[in-house]
Amino acid sequence: MFDLYTSPTPNGWKASCTLEELGLAYVVKPVNLMKQEQKTPDFLAMNPNGRIPVIKNTQSEEVVFESGAIMIYLAELTGQLLPTSGPKRYEVLQWLMFQMGGVGPMMGQANVFFRYFPEKIPAAIDRYQNESQRLLSVLDQHLSDKEFLCEEFSIADIANWCWARTHEWSGVDISEMAHLKRWINTMHAREGCYKGIKVPGKVDPADIVKSGKTLIV
Amino acid sequence: MFDLYTSPTPNGWKASCTLEELGLAYVVKPVNLMKQEQKTPDFLAMNPNGRIPVIKNTQSEEVVFESGAIMIYLAELTGQLLPTSGPKRYEVLQWLMFQMGGVGPMMGQANVFFRYFPEKIPAAIDRYQNESQRLLSVLDQHLSDKEFLCEEFSIADIANWCWARTHEWSGVDISEMAHLKRWINTMHAREGCYKGIKVPGKVDPADIVKSGKTLIV
Repeated sequence: MFDLYTSPTPNGWKASCTLEELGLAYVVKPVNLMKQEQKTPDFLAMNPNGRIPVIKNTQSEEVVFESGAIMIYLAELTGQLLPTSGPKRYEVLQWLMFQMGGVGPMMGQANVFFRYFPEKIPAAIDRYQNESQRLLSVLDQHLSDKEFLCEEFSIADIANWCWARTHEWSGVDISEMAHLKRWINTMHAREGCYKGIKVPGKVDPADIVKSGKTLIV
Repeated sequence: MFDLYTSPTPNGWKASCTLEELGLAYVVKPVNLMKQEQKTPDFLAMNPNGRIPVIKNTQSEEVVFESGAIMIYLAELTGQLLPTSGPKRYEVLQWLMFQMGGVGPMMGQANVFFRYFPEKIPAAIDRYQNESQRLLSVLDQHLSDKEFLCEEFSIADIANWCWARTHEWSGVDISEMAHLKRWINTMHAREGCYKGIKVPGKVDPADIVKSGKTLIV
C-alpha cells in the first residue's frame, strides 16, 4: 500500500496514472498548492524541494520524490512498464528523460508566462510556446510509425502524455500533429490513465481551458 | 567501446564524467553547436531531438540519447554509481531527477536570459536566477550532514555537480552555501570528474567566466 501526496498537475498525474496502470492500491493525500501545503515542515521532511508528487510505501516506510523517480520505482517494483534489461529498457528511459528535461520544464515555463506571470512578456511567451511545440513535434514525428513511444506501452508514454494532453493550457497548437493527437486519444482511452488524471480531485483536465479553472504547475 | 557525441556543456560533461569515473574507453566525437551540427540528418537519426550528448556502443550498435538516460545506462552496464536495488537506488534516482527536471532546466533558462537573449528582461533573469539559487540551496542544505548527495558517490553527484559548478556563468551567488562549495571542491578533486569536464575541448569551465568564452547550453 502507498500514500500518494499529490495535486491536479501533470507531474501529479504521472504518479497516479502509473499507480492505476499497475493496479496498485494507494491512498490519495491531496496537497493544496494554493495554501502552500507543499512547504510545510512535514512535507519538506519528505521532499526538501517542496514539490509534489511524493510517494510513501506504508509497509517499508520508504519515501520517494520526483515524478520520474517514482515512475521508475513503481515499474521496477512490479516488473512492468519498463523492460528490466536490454536496449528496449534504455529507449524507455531516454523518452522518459526527454519529458523530464524537455517537455515538462518547457511546457511548465509556457504556462508560467502565458497564464500566471504578473507581466505579459511576449518574447518569453513565444520562446516557451515555440520550444514546447518543437518538442511535441518531435513526439509527433516519432509516433508516425508506431502506436506507443517505444515497442510497448511504458512509463515513457505516461510521462509525456500527462504533459502533452495539456497543450491547450500552455497555448500550444498541435492541430497539424496527427500522430500525436491519435496517441493522445489512445492514451486517454486506457482505463488506468483515465482514472489517473482524475486524481486527486474531480477536475477533468480536458475541461480546464473551457472552464477557466486554475491548473498549477 | 563507445562513441560519445558531445560539446562543452553541463549535459555533455554529465556523460564524459560518468565514462571517466567508470574507467570506460570512449572516442570523443565533438559536435559544434554553433555550426548546428546537432541538427544534421546523421545526428537527428541518432537523436530526433537534436541535442547532445548521444552515446553509441560500437559493439552492440546501441544508441542512447538524453544525458540522464546515458548515465543510468552506463551505471547499469557496470553495476557502479547506482545501487542495483533497494531504497538507496531510488535515493540516487530521485536526486538525478531533481537535476534533470529542476537544476538543469532552471540554470539553463537563467543562462538564456542572462547571457544570450536578444532582449534584457529583468523579470525573466530574476525568475531563473532566483529559482536556480533556491534549488542549489536545497542541495546545500541536503549536503550539510553528508559528503555526497546519497550514501555513496553516485551519478546523482555527477549530474548535479556538472550544473552547480557553473553557477557563476548563470549569475547565481552561492557564497553563503558552505556545504555546496565544499562538495563542489570535493567533486572537482576526483580524477574522473576533473578529466570529464575537459571533454571535448581544452576549455576549462572554471575559467569560462573569467575568459568570457561562450558556453552554450
